[in-house]
Amino acid sequence: MELVSRLAQLIPSIGHNTKSISLEVGIGDDAAVLRLSPGSEWVTSCDFSLEGTHFRPEYPPESIGYKALARATSDLVAMGAKPRYFLLALALPAGKTGKWLRRFASGMSRAAREFDMPLIGGDTSRSDTVTICVTVLGQIPSGLSVLRSGASPGDHIYVTGTLGVAQLGLEIARRGLSRQRSLARYLHAHLYPQIPVSLGQALAGHHIPSAMMDISDGLSTDLARLCTASHIGAQIYAGQLPAPKIPSTLLSRGIDPLALALHGGEDYGLLFTVPPHAVPRLSRIARHTKITRIGEITRHRDIILIHPDGRSSPLPAKGWNPFS
Amino acid sequence: MELVSRLAQLIPSIGHNTKSISLEVGIGDDAAVLRLSPGSEWVTSCDFSLEGTHFRPEYPPESIGYKALARATSDLVAMGAKPRYFLLALALPAGKTGKWLRRFASGMSRAAREFDMPLIGGDTSRSDTVTICVTVLGQIPSGLSVLRSGASPGDHIYVTGTLGVAQLGLEIARRGLSRQRSLARYLHAHLYPQIPVSLGQALAGHHIPSAMMDISDGLSTDLARLCTASHIGAQIYAGQLPAPKIPSTLLSRGIDPLALALHGGEDYGLLFTVPPHAVPRLSRIARHTKITRIGEITRHRDIILIHPDGRSSPLPAKGWNPFS
Repeated sequence: MELVSRLAQLIPSIGHNTKSISLEVGIGDDAAVLRLSPGSEWVTSCDFSLEGTHFRPEYPPESIGYKALARATSDLVAMGAKPRYFLLALALPAGKTGKWLRRFASGMSRAAREFDMPLIGGDTSRSDTVTICVTVLGQIPSGLSVLRSGASPGDHIYVTGTLGVAQLGLEIARRGLSRQRSLARYLHAHLYPQIPVSLGQALAGHHIPSAMMDISDGLSTDLARLCTASHIGAQIYAGQLPAPKIPSTLLSRGIDPLALALHGGEDYGLLFTVPPHAVPRLSRIARHTKITRIGEITRHRDIILIHPDGRSSPLPAKGWNPFS
Repeated sequence: MELVSRLAQLIPSIGHNTKSISLEVGIGDDAAVLRLSPGSEWVTSCDFSLEGTHFRPEYPPESIGYKALARATSDLVAMGAKPRYFLLALALPAGKTGKWLRRFASGMSRAAREFDMPLIGGDTSRSDTVTICVTVLGQIPSGLSVLRSGASPGDHIYVTGTLGVAQLGLEIARRGLSRQRSLARYLHAHLYPQIPVSLGQALAGHHIPSAMMDISDGLSTDLARLCTASHIGAQIYAGQLPAPKIPSTLLSRGIDPLALALHGGEDYGLLFTVPPHAVPRLSRIARHTKITRIGEITRHRDIILIHPDGRSSPLPAKGWNPFS
């Protein structure tokens, strides 16, 4: 059987004989065909997951599949869109088309079910290392998408979840501590990032954020991108950052919770700004999700970190950069 | 400057400050946002172009960029859609982010202008080998897309262009004959495939084909896919295939024009079937393009090759298979 047909069997997908509200043609033809209802817009993005760059070859194949789809879907969530469909381009070494592929597909299927988005097409090929590119398509009522460019001076800055947990998991994997039971939940955050799918839609649907993006490369790097797009600056309170509690065995190895929270990547939480008048509505909408106010947008263009003792210092962008 | 911003400068693209009829948000945010007019549908597909699998590292970077976009766009053409936008996921070794990238972008830009499709987003990363995934978005009036599954017994089978020229170019590159001037046009067909963008739309717009797809992996393999999707068979006349004229220097090296025409991949022409009643309309629509009738669709499921002497034999699918 061709690899594409096997993938279509292993991952929740839409082929020729399935009817869907907005999909005319799914897997099995040259391309997928989408119909759109009036009043809504499509949101699209694509993301690589590459062996050696985004994951290590010894990672569980389930996590590679789960995270590849979560990474890409996070961009839809950050626009406020509802995930709808995805395309999977997958190139594998010949030795990974059996059991490895089934485990990979099982992880990706779990994500596809959680996000309620079936596979509708893609490409398969061969390569020496596992090479994944996921393209996602989401839908949003016209005019509701939340950009990076809408933040204004005085807006409050929020993040979801805890910052730096995924990075902590990566440090654990790098130090060969993956088998320590007490560290399992940090490793899990690195391997299976939980993205706030419903919250993104709820925030956009209630017109709450003035700007929003996902934190993929680390707060310091992604906040700088938001500030550049919005032509503003920010001040961040170090003492308010939702940093992870570091197990004592790791503290002694030089892992610093503040550095993790500021620069650690791959949490895939949301970074968003809220005008003061919308803050009461935010509290109602987000009452089931952990959100933390970490600072304010400022008129001057700098990004400043205010320490608990009142000192302030510039916050350099030291998150993940594939070319550094 | 971030790599994505450099790409946006180097390739015709739509960012925040450009207005487009159906694009709300382009490059520079988490995802692109598309608005659709009533009565039309979106067509989407993605295609890898991988070093070692789809091109050799020594190929001109311009051709790698051109062909990556042409390969993907060919799937839109095969549905009858008008190319509209594309996403580029590009991972490079650190040594290729300078001159190599500019030459790559120049080739991709040429394709983007020819197909009239700007870049609207994507992803950049680092990898040891050049890794490209192009996602294309096309538009088509509702209900007009031409699938692989519509062929019926008695339909005539057509192909565009000459079959096997790109494969001939690949054989020339493999044999180290790339510098021979008399062979340049075959090599050019391999490096810069010309895809019939207007013809695909015209055929679909006039309801001419009952089934259509692009020939990417070779006639024998792609025709088998069309027959499987349509639950029919086919007979092909070997003497009618538009095979390339092989230069005598290559004939003596064992290159067989019939094998090239039957199994040679990457021409990216169209394979389509036409009911007899639509043939007169086809002649009017396609009068400026080389099209050749090569056989008929049959009720029995086999694919048969009829030789010039009247003998017939089964036609095995021997086109490109990345895992063979």
